[in-house]
Amino acid sequence: MFVKNCWYVAAWDHEVLADTLLERGILNQSILIYRLTDGTPVALDNKCPHRHAPLNLGRREGDSVRCMYHGLKFDATGQCTEIPGQDRIPPKLCVKSYPMVQRGRWLWIWMGDPERADPALIPDAYSLNHPEWRMKPGYLHYDADYQLISDNLLDFSHLSYVHEKTLGGSPNIAEVRPVIERLERGVRVTRDVNNTVPAPYHARLGGFTGKVNRRFSYDYLVPGILLMAASVKPAETPDDDMTGALQFHSCQALTPETDTTTHYFFMQAHKFRLDDATITESIYQSLCTAFEEDRRIIEAQQRLIRRTPPSPMQPIAADAALNQFRWLIKRLHDEEAAATPAVIPLQSVA
Amino acid sequence: MFVKNCWYVAAWDHEVLADTLLERGILNQSILIYRLTDGTPVALDNKCPHRHAPLNLGRREGDSVRCMYHGLKFDATGQCTEIPGQDRIPPKLCVKSYPMVQRGRWLWIWMGDPERADPALIPDAYSLNHPEWRMKPGYLHYDADYQLISDNLLDFSHLSYVHEKTLGGSPNIAEVRPVIERLERGVRVTRDVNNTVPAPYHARLGGFTGKVNRRFSYDYLVPGILLMAASVKPAETPDDDMTGALQFHSCQALTPETDTTTHYFFMQAHKFRLDDATITESIYQSLCTAFEEDRRIIEAQQRLIRRTPPSPMQPIAADAALNQFRWLIKRLHDEEAAATPAVIPLQSVA
Amino acid sequence: MFVKNCWYVAAWDHEVLADTLLERGILNQSILIYRLTDGTPVALDNKCPHRHAPLNLGRREGDSVRCMYHGLKFDATGQCTEIPGQDRIPPKLCVKSYPMVQRGRWLWIWMGDPERADPALIPDAYSLNHPEWRMKPGYLHYDADYQLISDNLLDFSHLSYVHEKTLGGSPNIAEVRPVIERLERGVRVTRDVNNTVPAPYHARLGGFTGKVNRRFSYDYLVPGILLMAASVKPAETPDDDMTGALQFHSCQALTPETDTTTHYFFMQAHKFRLDDATITESIYQSLCTAFEEDRRIIEAQQRLIRRTPPSPMQPIAADAALNQFRWLIKRLHDEEAAATPAVIPLQSVA
Repeated sequence: MFVKNCWYVAAWDHEVLADTLLERGILNQSILIYRLTDGTPVALDNKCPHRHAPLNLGRREGDSVRCMYHGLKFDATGQCTEIPGQDRIPPKLCVKSYPMVQRGRWLWIWMGDPERADPALIPDAYSLNHPEWRMKPGYLHYDADYQLISDNLLDFSHLSYVHEKTLGGSPNIAEVRPVIERLERGVRVTRDVNNTVPAPYHARLGGFTGKVNRRFSYDYLVPGILLMAASVKPAETPDDDMTGALQFHSCQALTPETDTTTHYFFMQAHKFRLDDATITESIYQSLCTAFEEDRRIIEAQQRLIRRTPPSPMQPIAADAALNQFRWLIKRLHDEEAAATPAVIPLQSVA
Repeated sequence: MFVKNCWYVAAWDHEVLADTLLERGILNQSILIYRLTDGTPVALDNKCPHRHAPLNLGRREGDSVRCMYHGLKFDATGQCTEIPGQDRIPPKLCVKSYPMVQRGRWLWIWMGDPERADPALIPDAYSLNHPEWRMKPGYLHYDADYQLISDNLLDFSHLSYVHEKTLGGSPNIAEVRPVIERLERGVRVTRDVNNTVPAPYHARLGGFTGKVNRRFSYDYLVPGILLMAASVKPAETPDDDMTGALQFHSCQALTPETDTTTHYFFMQAHKFRLDDATITESIYQSLCTAFEEDRRIIEAQQRLIRRTPPSPMQPIAADAALNQFRWLIKRLHDEEAAATPAVIPLQSVA
Repeated sequence: MFVKNCWYVAAWDHEVLADTLLERGILNQSILIYRLTDGTPVALDNKCPHRHAPLNLGRREGDSVRCMYHGLKFDATGQCTEIPGQDRIPPKLCVKSYPMVQRGRWLWIWMGDPERADPALIPDAYSLNHPEWRMKPGYLHYDADYQLISDNLLDFSHLSYVHEKTLGGSPNIAEVRPVIERLERGVRVTRDVNNTVPAPYHARLGGFTGKVNRRFSYDYLVPGILLMAASVKPAETPDDDMTGALQFHSCQALTPETDTTTHYFFMQAHKFRLDDATITESIYQSLCTAFEEDRRIIEAQQRLIRRTPPSPMQPIAADAALNQFRWLIKRLHDEEAAATPAVIPLQSVA
């Protein structure tokens, strides 16, 4: 179940260089992404309208792309501008183009009605490109419905179990009841885990020897964007004293490739020891290790759902945030379905 | 087409050690098998009722198992006994448990109505664990409907062709008409092949130089359990004289994993030269070689059935036993379907 | 969409040697191909009518084949002639046999009504076996609907793009409008590309230093048979002077294995330097390289069609030949469907 009228992360900036013709599956469509000579990223339907050959196997010619099956050429708006051996070009011969915007290091695409593609709706993933933060970009491909991954990100009680030996470290995280606030296009979750043992990777980075206070505070926004401030500091320091704290900001984005596969773009930026590249790398490696732990359980969950007879999921209290978000996605999806112009019957019966 | 109210072999005993959480697909379900601290084997639905994560990726805690996604804990009856961060546990929050019994070296599971799980219905595979017999356990995974494998086991005329150079050795086996008796829960097949050449592996084991008499006598029981006494001896010896005979007892069990994949548990025990481990090993290797011959033709048969348009199978006389058994499976299956309580409509129309 | 009443290439002659039992999937059927002791090729349904085991895993016995599952024996007409352990053989116990004819080095099979299998309908692929021509046989397996490959062969404008660096070499080929003539069972396409640069592989073979005239002239016949005369010669020579010309004759045949997979039999014969085996090999290698280029784009096209929502293909002028051929295939297919005897209802309502 996809919402179309929203911004999805289509790619990291470094995936689309000057000469790249990137093919990316998004919401069951195949999308071609490339950059104009001035660097502006564009997104077109990847399927040549002539015989459905993939344009990403084609050739860049200036700001245009030529299909390398029979040589049709399309400009950056998707309009066909050349058919070898044919003078007249049908004006309707074009591929669909999609609104695309680069912000920081992410290329965002709008899969719904282009008229409604308001860049103001792009979530503020500021730490992707900010002088006070450092990060290394990450990507995973998931054989799972993106909603199962959203579920995971909306209930951090899983840190105590899935990430027991990496990001978690203690059952305390699962025991705390987070504060959940409804946002217009998402959910805000705040979880304070005080006077707890540091996570193994925090201990390594921060040199904590005693108990710590951990805070996770994030907005989870449509269609599946996590923007999180996280910190860890010695338990004895006052609430507003961030001296000696490790501060993180994490941006993560889910983009459905198909109904049951997902692109996962992620990074976790740090605000301390900015000039120590080993810190950036170490955080990245810890994240990769942990996100493989997530992927292992979520893909196993997806396989189990697929191969066994359907049965309802039984709710518990910790599901509050994920249920709110599932409801929101369903409401937006249903509104879009209702707004789609009905197919007019050829003959209506009076 | 599965019968549910019967005992299936779920595992060899050595597959479920003290700390094992074994996942096994049975009749399209995913089953978790493990042992209590006292060694008793238990079987639970492997799908956590909360978010459908697989419990076999979880953690043993005493006689309980904890789901390592969000930490729910279940006791050996399947009842949820702990939800991290939540005091009240809904009494209905549980996973289904299945009756399980260990007999000899096999763990048997009952997939149907637990009220009807009578251990007296477990076939007597005595040679699995008997001082007068020796054997080595075997297992194969089949990409085929279990009924195609039952067909194979119910018509030993295939020994002359599939196992020409291993277990068979002569067209005589196919030429003999076996005696077939109907049993309440299966079929009894007796085939005497007299004055024939020994099978290649019998010649090796028994040193036979002349003609031999071979006997195969087996019960084939619901859902797909073969219990067979087999012997080979010099042709000139009287019927009741087993001096110089090689005597075997074979236990084989089919358990459908899905509609088109099957677990095959097997062994063939010998009653001679019990202390010669090379004999046990040699019989096991001969069996593995021969059962790969079966698998090759049966999986090819399954693929051919799957990829070509459907057509009826044409009966011959040799199908008598397999047809009886297919009728029995169908009758039991249909009886179960008829006995399933009908879904009561929300509102019935008067 | 398959036409059944026509000849398909089933195999190269060298694929079916004296002892071979070749299995080949054709039009979703599994076909067994072998030779009688006198060398005559025969084609039978590969599915044993008894339990659907594949006969190609069986054994040749004279002109017959024995199923190596339960030993049933079939003669070359498909009639069962032996059932081990059973005297009476039901006369209807047989496998379907298909008309098969060898011409040159191809074995042709007729998949429709045997009464209509007229060998006069076999296209004349003369260069497969002719003293004035040399060639090396080629085969490719395609994960694509054969009609997508027919499309490719019916529009050589793709040479300019797909084979830019191999068989093509210039946009001129795409710019020329070919002459298209309708044939009773196909389409004739003639494309003269004059005063153009030689293709890279022509330059290599013919030592051309200046501009050349290229001609492609082919019949494309039901179900998917290309028979082409092609030549290249210095541009300044008169039309009827073939001195210094490289002359080729190419025979290519598509045989659907399933709805979305295809066998592709091909060769390109040369009429020059017949005794130089390096020429034959070099042409074969160039063809293999180029046909891999086709396969890459066509399989990508097939995948894109499969994984994205359906949309219509937009016609251009270059589609004239392929559209004519698609119409012909559809017309023949629809005629066959209409001619199939309707299923007579058990009881007709008056």
